Amino acid sequence: MLTVAYDGTNYSGWQFQPGKMTIEGVLNEELSRFLNEEIKVIGASRTDAGVHAEGAVCVFDTKSRIPGEKFSYALNQSLPEDIVIRKSEEVDATFHPRKIATKKTYRYSIWHDEFPLPTNSRYTHWVYTGLDVEAMKEAAKYFVGEHDFKGFCSANTQAETTVRTLYDVAVCAKEIAESGQTCPESGQTCTESRRTYHGRIDIFVTGNGFLYNMVRIIAGTLIEVGQGKIIPSDIPSILESGDRSLAGNTAPAKGLTLVKYEITDD
Amino acid sequence: MLTVAYDGTNYSGWQFQPGKMTIEGVLNEELSRFLNEEIKVIGASRTDAGVHAEGAVCVFDTKSRIPGEKFSYALNQSLPEDIVIRKSEEVDATFHPRKIATKKTYRYSIWHDEFPLPTNSRYTHWVYTGLDVEAMKEAAKYFVGEHDFKGFCSANTQAETTVRTLYDVAVCAKEIAESGQTCPESGQTCTESRRTYHGRIDIFVTGNGFLYNMVRIIAGTLIEVGQGKIIPSDIPSILESGDRSLAGNTAPAKGLTLVKYEITDD
Repeated sequence: MLTVAYDGTNYSGWQFQPGKMTIEGVLNEELSRFLNEEIKVIGASRTDAGVHAEGAVCVFDTKSRIPGEKFSYALNQSLPEDIVIRKSEEVDATFHPRKIATKKTYRYSIWHDEFPLPTNSRYTHWVYTGLDVEAMKEAAKYFVGEHDFKGFCSANTQAETTVRTLYDVAVCAKEIAESGQTCPESGQTCTESRRTYHGRIDIFVTGNGFLYNMVRIIAGTLIEVGQGKIIPSDIPSILESGDRSLAGNTAPAKGLTLVKYEITDD
Repeated sequence: MLTVAYDGTNYSGWQFQPGKMTIEGVLNEELSRFLNEEIKVIGASRTDAGVHAEGAVCVFDTKSRIPGEKFSYALNQSLPEDIVIRKSEEVDATFHPRKIATKKTYRYSIWHDEFPLPTNSRYTHWVYTGLDVEAMKEAAKYFVGEHDFKGFCSANTQAETTVRTLYDVAVCAKEIAESGQTCPESGQTCTESRRTYHGRIDIFVTGNGFLYNMVRIIAGTLIEVGQGKIIPSDIPSILESGDRSLAGNTAPAKGLTLVKYEITDD
């Protein structure tokens, strides 16, 4: 089992596609070359083009006798700089990362300021309109629990059921500056009454599974809540409707990072 | 006066050099084109090749009647994505950003883990050896105050005096995992007794002025303190010696970001 981190900027997502640069494709190629046998990894989740990961997980079978924990060191020597194996370990031969109970955490990062910031623009979605972060926090609570997320996934989902459980949806604003106050990060004084927060806003979403584009649609919906286009108390009825058109837009891929994959006990 | 942010990865530093991509060169070219007159900006500080900025400052003279605060919007339309004007404002014609009392803040960012993290590797220096962050915090205190930083600058400095005042040197470790504990970020259990911290360590240095490579040498010295090569209580004598060879190595440029430029009252 490999714990993989990657900068998804230059990749067409996780899943192997002939003729395209994908994380799965690079890992298969690199492992096959290194072990001199055909390796096909099985990923725990398939991130979209441009999505990043700090803790993606995949497994593979091999005849090799190299101890599991040594793979990370060997592979990191030859992998491209934007893919790193953070941990490698031996797991039971029957282990399948999508067929056991797990918890996954995604982070959706927003850069909220008048202009983008070059040092984080590869990993954040720039929003220049005013965002009411308190309203976003209030709205986030309604997503927690078991819900049918039919309205929060792309139409072309192949999932058997659209019911998922979210354990936590947290909106974390690092820097706060109310109108007339000076933003601690930029040192600029806030003059627009609607722009109450400057800086980085991270939305952490933890759940037992995610539908296609689900986190990006939740993030897009929370942004529209922040912009006053959707009222926090409308979230339950949007969820209940199952109507994709009532939820917010799909937020751009580059703001999304798969942070953590955990095996749960049950 | 422009407040400029940039990703320095692809630039040969701030200062104009013929035939090289520099921040000053791009700004001069872009302003001259936009205003149809020859513009030469005067920067408050000259960052090295590969160093980043979130709040660099420069000024220029122009005959243009465009209101100062409108420049940012116009320039950001045509500047490359890795340079952004965060603020533009009119200042007194006699204002010179290096001839007044100012406070500048730099951040030196370290990624401290077994392997690099692709999503921050452009902006952090990866250190895989064990770092004693408490020792680094203790050592940092000795740099605060007025000192002769002769031993903490590159030999080719042209400064008249090497005395500078530092107002604050703070070592901030975001994630903590002691041996045997699980790191909250990576979810990995720490097994090496020397590696007591995982994750990102930011060193913030605020002062009235900085010598050539000074922050990078302070950061390199604090890293060697973390590694046990230098004892915190040795810092005063290293400072007093003025001997460059007693201080630590110059830490790599990519971990350094000029965060803030402030005009002080005195």
